[in-house]
Amino acid sequence: MKTQFYTAASLDGFLADERHSIDWLYTCGDVEPDGYLEFIQQVGALAMGSATYAWMMKHIIEPGADHPGPWPYVQPTWVFTTRQWRTPPGADVRFVRGDVRPVYEEMRAAAGGKNLWVVGGGELVGQFHDAGLLDELIVTVASVTLGKGAPLLPRRITVPPLRLRSARAIGTGFAELIYDVPKPAAS
Amino acid sequence: MKTQFYTAASLDGFLADERHSIDWLYTCGDVEPDGYLEFIQQVGALAMGSATYAWMMKHIIEPGADHPGPWPYVQPTWVFTTRQWRTPPGADVRFVRGDVRPVYEEMRAAAGGKNLWVVGGGELVGQFHDAGLLDELIVTVASVTLGKGAPLLPRRITVPPLRLRSARAIGTGFAELIYDVPKPAAS
Repeated sequence: MKTQFYTAASLDGFLADERHSIDWLYTCGDVEPDGYLEFIQQVGALAMGSATYAWMMKHIIEPGADHPGPWPYVQPTWVFTTRQWRTPPGADVRFVRGDVRPVYEEMRAAAGGKNLWVVGGGELVGQFHDAGLLDELIVTVASVTLGKGAPLLPRRITVPPLRLRSARAIGTGFAELIYDVPKPAAS
Repeated sequence: MKTQFYTAASLDGFLADERHSIDWLYTCGDVEPDGYLEFIQQVGALAMGSATYAWMMKHIIEPGADHPGPWPYVQPTWVFTTRQWRTPPGADVRFVRGDVRPVYEEMRAAAGGKNLWVVGGGELVGQFHDAGLLDELIVTVASVTLGKGAPLLPRRITVPPLRLRSARAIGTGFAELIYDVPKPAAS
């Protein structure tokens, strides 16, 4: 069991552009490369922040969505939010707030030994890292720069640094970088 | 002959941290991997911005520098600046300002068919790209995140996207990503 941040990002480190769009991802080719199916099958529980959930509701679930479809996860999903939200049909979504640590324990209990996926955004991932709970970073670097946008991981992680485990090109549109994340020095 | 941006950056897309430091690079291992010698031998002229030149003067050349040494380039170097600077002993440094295009022509004439290296910062590289003069991006991604700092390339390059030519791990501390840069759509 490990806690993973699996995400796409621009080469200059943004998860979404300044208009909260990820349309630029689609200019780079197939955004669900082979590795995704293998990855998601090992995931037992998900966590995401409020903005990420809002993005999914707007672009996938709600009437008029530009990428309409069913809720994409069978696993239970914890959403960190202080707002009131509707739940997509058939989705196991649990709304929480505050400290990530008790939520991590709930997720771990539900995951049945499988991995935990922190979907994003960067600030929520940073909170998992601050608590010493982030194990792995899998970044699919899209072949674009955005200049501005939502930051990948708004933390300084330098001592010790991340440990790169593999780097590979996926066509000309993506590079997949996989890192082991050391525990913060203070923990 | 091609114009290259060869640089190290953090995984989250910064060339230097918010204190203008690149000390975090040294936590990742040898910062001049094998590829550098091969790269620099094909370079005939360099360009850099004022802040990059200031960094080199402070950290390499001036009395009390923390990484003291000779000026590291034998090739002629154009520095875009509006300030008055001293020139390091033995260095061929030419101070210029304004539009990158006439400077590009001077560099090309001096380079004798070899490549042009835009050392940084990101804004100067962006100006070369705006003018349709940037051909290749070689980013050595250090296994760190910084959260804040000097941006890699403060431009939106999505249509067409960059074209990834290769991705490889250099130990656990670096990933080398090499891109072909398309001309901007407007040029």
